[in-house]
Amino acid sequence: MRKIKLTKDAVDGLLDNLLKRSPNNYGQYTDAVNEIVETVKKDGDAAVFEYTKKFDGADITPENFIVSDAEIEEAYAVVSADVLEVIRKAIVNIRTYHEKQKQYSWFDSQPNGTILGQKVTPLTRVGVYVPGGKAAYPSSVLMNILPAKVAGVEQIVMVTPPGKDGKVNPGTLVAAKEAGADVVYKVGGAQAIAALAFGTESIPKVDKIVGPGNIFVALAKKAVYGYVSIDSIAGPSEILVIADETANPRYVAADLLSQAEHDELASAILVTTSESLADQVSEEVDAFVKKLSRRTILEKSLENYGYILIAEDLNGAVDIANAIASEHLEIVTKNPFEVMTQIKNAGAIFLGEYSSEPLGDYFAGPNHVLPTNGTAKFFSPLSVDDFIKKSSIIYYSRQALEPVKDEIIKFAESESLTAHANSIRVRFEK
Amino acid sequence: MRKIKLTKDAVDGLLDNLLKRSPNNYGQYTDAVNEIVETVKKDGDAAVFEYTKKFDGADITPENFIVSDAEIEEAYAVVSADVLEVIRKAIVNIRTYHEKQKQYSWFDSQPNGTILGQKVTPLTRVGVYVPGGKAAYPSSVLMNILPAKVAGVEQIVMVTPPGKDGKVNPGTLVAAKEAGADVVYKVGGAQAIAALAFGTESIPKVDKIVGPGNIFVALAKKAVYGYVSIDSIAGPSEILVIADETANPRYVAADLLSQAEHDELASAILVTTSESLADQVSEEVDAFVKKLSRRTILEKSLENYGYILIAEDLNGAVDIANAIASEHLEIVTKNPFEVMTQIKNAGAIFLGEYSSEPLGDYFAGPNHVLPTNGTAKFFSPLSVDDFIKKSSIIYYSRQALEPVKDEIIKFAESESLTAHANSIRVRFEK
Repeated sequence: MRKIKLTKDAVDGLLDNLLKRSPNNYGQYTDAVNEIVETVKKDGDAAVFEYTKKFDGADITPENFIVSDAEIEEAYAVVSADVLEVIRKAIVNIRTYHEKQKQYSWFDSQPNGTILGQKVTPLTRVGVYVPGGKAAYPSSVLMNILPAKVAGVEQIVMVTPPGKDGKVNPGTLVAAKEAGADVVYKVGGAQAIAALAFGTESIPKVDKIVGPGNIFVALAKKAVYGYVSIDSIAGPSEILVIADETANPRYVAADLLSQAEHDELASAILVTTSESLADQVSEEVDAFVKKLSRRTILEKSLENYGYILIAEDLNGAVDIANAIASEHLEIVTKNPFEVMTQIKNAGAIFLGEYSSEPLGDYFAGPNHVLPTNGTAKFFSPLSVDDFIKKSSIIYYSRQALEPVKDEIIKFAESESLTAHANSIRVRFEK
Repeated sequence: MRKIKLTKDAVDGLLDNLLKRSPNNYGQYTDAVNEIVETVKKDGDAAVFEYTKKFDGADITPENFIVSDAEIEEAYAVVSADVLEVIRKAIVNIRTYHEKQKQYSWFDSQPNGTILGQKVTPLTRVGVYVPGGKAAYPSSVLMNILPAKVAGVEQIVMVTPPGKDGKVNPGTLVAAKEAGADVVYKVGGAQAIAALAFGTESIPKVDKIVGPGNIFVALAKKAVYGYVSIDSIAGPSEILVIADETANPRYVAADLLSQAEHDELASAILVTTSESLADQVSEEVDAFVKKLSRRTILEKSLENYGYILIAEDLNGAVDIANAIASEHLEIVTKNPFEVMTQIKNAGAIFLGEYSSEPLGDYFAGPNHVLPTNGTAKFFSPLSVDDFIKKSSIIYYSRQALEPVKDEIIKFAESESLTAHANSIRVRFEK
């Protein structure tokens, strides 16, 4: 891995390089995606089936569009009992964590007769996109569906592309069933997003679409934003490790690689105050890469977006971590909790030498759908919040309105909104 | 106002008509907006000044770009003492309500050595867009800035278009100062949104952009979404009143008009179980319209998007209210709180005969920036939540990780992510 001393210029170059990976930089596919979206909006199922034939090579009809009970049973027969047991344990942990995120309606009343509050309502229907093929991750199915279930969403509509044989990945199906998807449609890509956003003869229109996908899926989600809500647009995975001389270089190296293996755009960055740790991690990385099964991907992503940065002190390390706003941040220092207090921007923060990032991907409970590509500056992990919305509640008695009526009228008239003023005035006319 | 009995066909036609007003339906301006956005991204201040000359007719330079202290003083001299006092009282109410929305970091620890939590951090820098000209509403400035202040945002950068004379609306300036904007730049339109999203020589890049604007502003916000966060894209204003025979027709009529006066795309809808109330409201509306100053706008918006709907019973009224998902919903029935329990979709809910909508616009405290155009199905009022983000916190001790290590490894390997498995395994190697 390349080793760099942190200077202003180095940081700027690094940030520019990382941002190249943004899904916002693939405008060349916009027209193609918009055409798919418009065609599905206009032609519904017919367009969906045609695109599925074209892009997935599968013959889908209204009859085999929905994954059948028999297909789900087949999937259970394929998935090993061991993996099913882990899935079920992970579900317990994910549910337990997300239950703590629940927000409740509240109100505040005053004796003069005012009630002000906020009513929390779950979304009615949510669409969950699940990638097919190589990127079919049952863990991701759990992470997208369970917060919606905890929020109280009435119907969860899952979409996932079929293989050429018209079948869906069995691990995906088992995870969907265990997590509580209400129905699974065999459709992927931009056509799936459009179908969820506008509805077709078969697929009901949803209120929000969540779930990761390729660039076509990301651009389609952006195109339909406003017609429906979407989760944040997922970019390539990232890890940043802040480590001092107390860190175990072998653990740090293994953790860097755990994200670098995702794809060639993934980024793994170590920021350390210790040059000797930097050298040791670099050696461990090289040794691991040779032995790991996804070696080709690892080599490419490390070459493109892997960095070892030497910081003068922990403050410098924290500054660059906040500037990068990494999806995953590990803090492996003498006092990780203290360093955490200075972190402003990160999707998930892993503390200490046993909190390795895959623990969060699979098992601990917090969501693994996290803001990428610097968006942790303003976006949050997927959560129960994503599946609720709020309404303000306002009640004023006559007794409460009377003493403030003139002020409201004055404010309205200062904005030349006379009908606004009139609606207060009329209540106190003789 | 047109009167319609509620049938399935009538509802479909009505919903289609209302959705015509969506900012998503103005694709013809997309190319023009994208060009402005790209030019500002590339050329910074120079492009901003050129567009300001072109669209606002104002000569802006680096020297007069920021509203000066002298200009703010001038603004205070123009705004009446009465209005300033109302602004200050409204600020107290808005702050008090929004303080109750604050979310706090939390964690949960288990004696085996696990700590799981959620850290709440305010956004660092936020951009607030404030329209100029006729749509300059000081109340809107308060509603956009105060939740950010309550959340703890470090810097609030306001932008608003100058008049030809290079000056900014004094009411806007006074509200900005009172609410706590840190700096005000004289720029509006798509060029202002692009400047906030990417930064220029003068304007710092922000994390999120909020605030209403015309169609160019709305499309520019959608274009930069992902580079920064945005609030929901505002459409034309709406009110829906559910009323039974106990309602005062004069109050209902006045309230319908209070939203209809906003602009020609605004929508005012009464849903009632009482034909006699329907007739009385219709008469009162006609009488008020003749006397109100914004008569031309009122007549147009009522003709285009005003409806009186007759429902068979309150359940029917609630169903159509949920289908329309109005920005403002008034419930003026014998038992408004009971009806409220059935409302799923509405921006703000006003209960009883003295809770007229303008009370919420100006004074009560809840935010008046609300989801429009059916988006209350999935979006919420602007709130403190819009100005924070969350990071997951994960700590596992060796003692906590050891008993679950094999399961995490199994899950990772079932997804063929061997480097993920390795990062757990390496911690327990001999």
